[in-house]
Amino acid sequence: MTNTPIRMGLIGTGRIGQVHAANIAASPDATLAWVADPMIEGARAVAAQFGGTATAVAHDLVASGEVDAVLIASPTPTHVDLIAASVDAGLPVLCEKPIDLDIARVDALAPKVRDSGVPVAIGFNRRFDPAFASVRARVAAGEIGRLEQLTIISRDPAAPPADYVGVSGGIFRDMTIHDFDMARFFLPEIVEVHATGGALFDAGVQAHGDFDSAVTTLRAASGAQVTIINSRHSAIGYDQRLEAFGAGGMLQVANAPTSLVSLSTASVVEARAPYQAFFLQRYAEAYALELSAFVRLARGEKSESSTFADGRAALVLADAARQSADEGRSISVDLG
Amino acid sequence: MTNTPIRMGLIGTGRIGQVHAANIAASPDATLAWVADPMIEGARAVAAQFGGTATAVAHDLVASGEVDAVLIASPTPTHVDLIAASVDAGLPVLCEKPIDLDIARVDALAPKVRDSGVPVAIGFNRRFDPAFASVRARVAAGEIGRLEQLTIISRDPAAPPADYVGVSGGIFRDMTIHDFDMARFFLPEIVEVHATGGALFDAGVQAHGDFDSAVTTLRAASGAQVTIINSRHSAIGYDQRLEAFGAGGMLQVANAPTSLVSLSTASVVEARAPYQAFFLQRYAEAYALELSAFVRLARGEKSESSTFADGRAALVLADAARQSADEGRSISVDLG
Amino acid sequence: MTNTPIRMGLIGTGRIGQVHAANIAASPDATLAWVADPMIEGARAVAAQFGGTATAVAHDLVASGEVDAVLIASPTPTHVDLIAASVDAGLPVLCEKPIDLDIARVDALAPKVRDSGVPVAIGFNRRFDPAFASVRARVAAGEIGRLEQLTIISRDPAAPPADYVGVSGGIFRDMTIHDFDMARFFLPEIVEVHATGGALFDAGVQAHGDFDSAVTTLRAASGAQVTIINSRHSAIGYDQRLEAFGAGGMLQVANAPTSLVSLSTASVVEARAPYQAFFLQRYAEAYALELSAFVRLARGEKSESSTFADGRAALVLADAARQSADEGRSISVDLG
Amino acid sequence: MTNTPIRMGLIGTGRIGQVHAANIAASPDATLAWVADPMIEGARAVAAQFGGTATAVAHDLVASGEVDAVLIASPTPTHVDLIAASVDAGLPVLCEKPIDLDIARVDALAPKVRDSGVPVAIGFNRRFDPAFASVRARVAAGEIGRLEQLTIISRDPAAPPADYVGVSGGIFRDMTIHDFDMARFFLPEIVEVHATGGALFDAGVQAHGDFDSAVTTLRAASGAQVTIINSRHSAIGYDQRLEAFGAGGMLQVANAPTSLVSLSTASVVEARAPYQAFFLQRYAEAYALELSAFVRLARGEKSESSTFADGRAALVLADAARQSADEGRSISVDLG
Repeated sequence: MTNTPIRMGLIGTGRIGQVHAANIAASPDATLAWVADPMIEGARAVAAQFGGTATAVAHDLVASGEVDAVLIASPTPTHVDLIAASVDAGLPVLCEKPIDLDIARVDALAPKVRDSGVPVAIGFNRRFDPAFASVRARVAAGEIGRLEQLTIISRDPAAPPADYVGVSGGIFRDMTIHDFDMARFFLPEIVEVHATGGALFDAGVQAHGDFDSAVTTLRAASGAQVTIINSRHSAIGYDQRLEAFGAGGMLQVANAPTSLVSLSTASVVEARAPYQAFFLQRYAEAYALELSAFVRLARGEKSESSTFADGRAALVLADAARQSADEGRSISVDLG
Repeated sequence: MTNTPIRMGLIGTGRIGQVHAANIAASPDATLAWVADPMIEGARAVAAQFGGTATAVAHDLVASGEVDAVLIASPTPTHVDLIAASVDAGLPVLCEKPIDLDIARVDALAPKVRDSGVPVAIGFNRRFDPAFASVRARVAAGEIGRLEQLTIISRDPAAPPADYVGVSGGIFRDMTIHDFDMARFFLPEIVEVHATGGALFDAGVQAHGDFDSAVTTLRAASGAQVTIINSRHSAIGYDQRLEAFGAGGMLQVANAPTSLVSLSTASVVEARAPYQAFFLQRYAEAYALELSAFVRLARGEKSESSTFADGRAALVLADAARQSADEGRSISVDLG
Repeated sequence: MTNTPIRMGLIGTGRIGQVHAANIAASPDATLAWVADPMIEGARAVAAQFGGTATAVAHDLVASGEVDAVLIASPTPTHVDLIAASVDAGLPVLCEKPIDLDIARVDALAPKVRDSGVPVAIGFNRRFDPAFASVRARVAAGEIGRLEQLTIISRDPAAPPADYVGVSGGIFRDMTIHDFDMARFFLPEIVEVHATGGALFDAGVQAHGDFDSAVTTLRAASGAQVTIINSRHSAIGYDQRLEAFGAGGMLQVANAPTSLVSLSTASVVEARAPYQAFFLQRYAEAYALELSAFVRLARGEKSESSTFADGRAALVLADAARQSADEGRSISVDLG
Repeated sequence: MTNTPIRMGLIGTGRIGQVHAANIAASPDATLAWVADPMIEGARAVAAQFGGTATAVAHDLVASGEVDAVLIASPTPTHVDLIAASVDAGLPVLCEKPIDLDIARVDALAPKVRDSGVPVAIGFNRRFDPAFASVRARVAAGEIGRLEQLTIISRDPAAPPADYVGVSGGIFRDMTIHDFDMARFFLPEIVEVHATGGALFDAGVQAHGDFDSAVTTLRAASGAQVTIINSRHSAIGYDQRLEAFGAGGMLQVANAPTSLVSLSTASVVEARAPYQAFFLQRYAEAYALELSAFVRLARGEKSESSTFADGRAALVLADAARQSADEGRSISVDLG
């Protein structure tokens, strides 16, 4: 590979932004050229550790002429404007999910993205998890025959702070959105959504009229059925499982063990340590692979990056799920 | 135990009837006194092997004065009349599920059962499976805290013959009905039902407007969420799993292994033999324990037998599921 | 099968004798005709439950003319005389292991057995365990290529009473003898034995100069290596595992689960219930299959029953193991 | 941590040397200051990638005055001289195992090491594997009571080239030596060794009078028994397991999965991908932790690094194992 590394501009230096910064610095194919955050201390700290010029003004980064691509890891309300600015500057974009909480703003942005021809990827990192990607490839290779039922269990370790819940867009747009994209990773054409939600344990969620527990069922154009089971807490650790059931068999993704050790005593046997703490551990490799795919996309090479349309589709499904839960009926969707 | 064994009258000598006959014969607490089947050869064969007087006329069995209790394993359309006759004769009944495919007929029978004081149990054998019963007991004991989400995966090895599908009452009344009862084993007060079904692979099912694949979600009065995933086929063997997820942890029932042996080679590791063929293997012990519980019920002792009301409730849920799948909306139910 | 059931004479009504009595009674191919035990109450109780004529005198059973075959489950010191008497009477024998604790007595009996042509089987029941038998068949079928290393882990739940230890013949003749036979089930031609033993925890064992913990290595004529790890106690339940390692892979026999349920919490995940209590649970099916094989042997049909020579070979290996542990060197054996 | 990073001198740039170079470069506590290899291209390549001055002459590195500690990853015959030179220069040493193939040369070096007071660590990296370290800590914490039997299964994926076999010192000094150290990690005072070896499949091994398969049993001063099962090939991938069996239970280390995915079909269920390729994958984390411990040792802080005495002890056990296999008897050892 004789390619010059891509100069990345990173916007946002929170938890996810720092993960991306480390991956950019570790990649032979990318360098961290600019780092933007209105909290300039964050930008400076990341730049000091991983390289690049720090700024408080994201648009300076875009206009710098020193970045080849932009990675947007800032708060959701900033995404649409920053995508627009990057696209206007001809800079490929990798934007964290969701594009926005308001589908109208997404749809207003869509023509610009489409017409520009500038690659825009949305950060559905789980597509790059080796286990999920392997199952998808093996399903595609016919190992289990036709896919009939897909089951996704996705539980966070603990509910977010109440103030975050208020701006999160709700469980479907904030958390299930990853599972909607995972469903579409296997079955892109979803045609119907049903969801039921409850606020069983979290006061913050209850206060905001949101749900902490949800079960969503999707129907694909093929007739295949998807079940998504979510909870905002999980005593056993981050619970991330998937089963693809087909006419000829089943492929399963288990939770990631944190130790190879098991204990057997007079009261229990084969007891193991709890699962991982959260997504930073579980999807560490996926984030790095997502970045690699984006580098290929930015270079105009073949890439598995998820697209702006994928980002829109997940939001449509999230909106439909909330509507379904509110109205007690299945909602037809057209992701066309 | 100095009790005299109970004299059982068995009606119906098909596949399930034969299981019950063998269990009655093997029980120290019961004897097979009469066996009825309009196909008299079946009744004679069972009587020859396990004891008792054979008859083609079920009502002769009820009227014989030689049975202490009746076990009804005949086709569904006969259940209501046979329960009524047994109750009229003061004979405790264990009747295979479902009571009937028509809730109106069940409700018409209900007052007689209630007013008679005669014990009537419905054959939801899975309640007696040691694994499911253990999970229920451990949930009740607080091992995982408050129960929030219950997931039941229940897949038959292969779809029934097309002519059976036509009289089965459909997947919800015929197959899911076991899972509805299992849901109520943990969460008796179900208040809402949503279901989605598809005919993905079976021509007989399609021809009858039935489903071969279904996902049902229930909501309990407590807010707890139940997910039931069904398929009429399963290449990997009989797939019968359950997860009880609570605030403090999770209890899981795995599929039953058929061998202790695993194979590891250069291409796969820890590969095991497929799961059991079907319910006769998986629930053999449950059938025997169900009989023991019924003997206790018939004797007026404390018993965990499921009741006529349980049988009715499962049918109400099945009807609601079909209605939900047809109308695309959640259905409220009152099992009161 | 139009065969008349074989009339069995059972000698010895202790724990194992009762298992055999129940299996004989449950078999369509055998009936319990006579039962002998010097403690006549035991014989009477077994005969009352499972059929047959009770006697205190084993030789009356042999001479009765009413038994077609003899099952010897009496104390080890009686085995040689009872085998001899049965063979003299032309009655096929299934004798519990070991034949005797003294190889000289075994060798003195051998010519009579050999010359008589009367089938004599030794009760190495584990050969009939479905898991072990499956692994042997799959090794023979070439699933893992040439067998190079066989590992047997065999631990009893708790040490026997001190007075039994004194007459047991020591751990190698009493306990490991099953594992020696299992080794020969896979690799009949063992040529070298090394053993090391320790008395780590059991006072009764220490008092008798016996071992409660032992590791034995065997070498087969093929060069294949066998490792046997024994302990007289096991807090986790009866520990019975086996690994066959070959050039192309590995076949493993796991401990038998006692429940399908696992528990996951904030402190452990996938914790299951302890293993089975002891051999009566673990090898229940093996005992029944052993009886079936013996019935075939007694009828002159093809049978997998282990032979008098197998019984002798296991004792030779046990003696060599004790000698090795005492002398600190490997012992060559000729099982010729 | 305000410590200045330690300047490391790396001698040897083969497979293991490169692992150490990468870990040094990645460590916040160390820098790669000098790199030596008589094949100067190797030294230059490593220095170019990870930093430092390249030389073909190891003694120049030691004499440079620019290294604070030395890591010896050169061929075994060079170890003794390089340790001596480093100690003479007052430089702490981390030397790959074994110290030497000849115990006499080790013993000749020992007084210098002891009298110098310079820390010398031997590269038994497996002590730092999180799974093994956890089991040891949990045994020490009493989770399974007194340790009675330790079982180590250690199989390489494939036999080394025949020419390497000729200079390897044989399986016990080359491969089992890691397992001897692991045994001593749990039970430092080994007092007796027995081993049996065979050349079952590898022509190179046979040509050199070496073994490709071995079973070794050790006895500790406490009476505890250790079993080590080795093979030079493993179709299923790198096989690295350990069981610590105690009076109160068992702790097990399983093979590391390479994927979270399992496949179930009509012919197999729960089949997973083969295990890791070899030690570079399996012990990647252990190498990094070993380096951290050595940095602490070099700084005079508390460290778990294995010592020169540990390196000597493992070689004594390897020699005793070979002697035992040759002479067919148990060998007493005094690790003093």
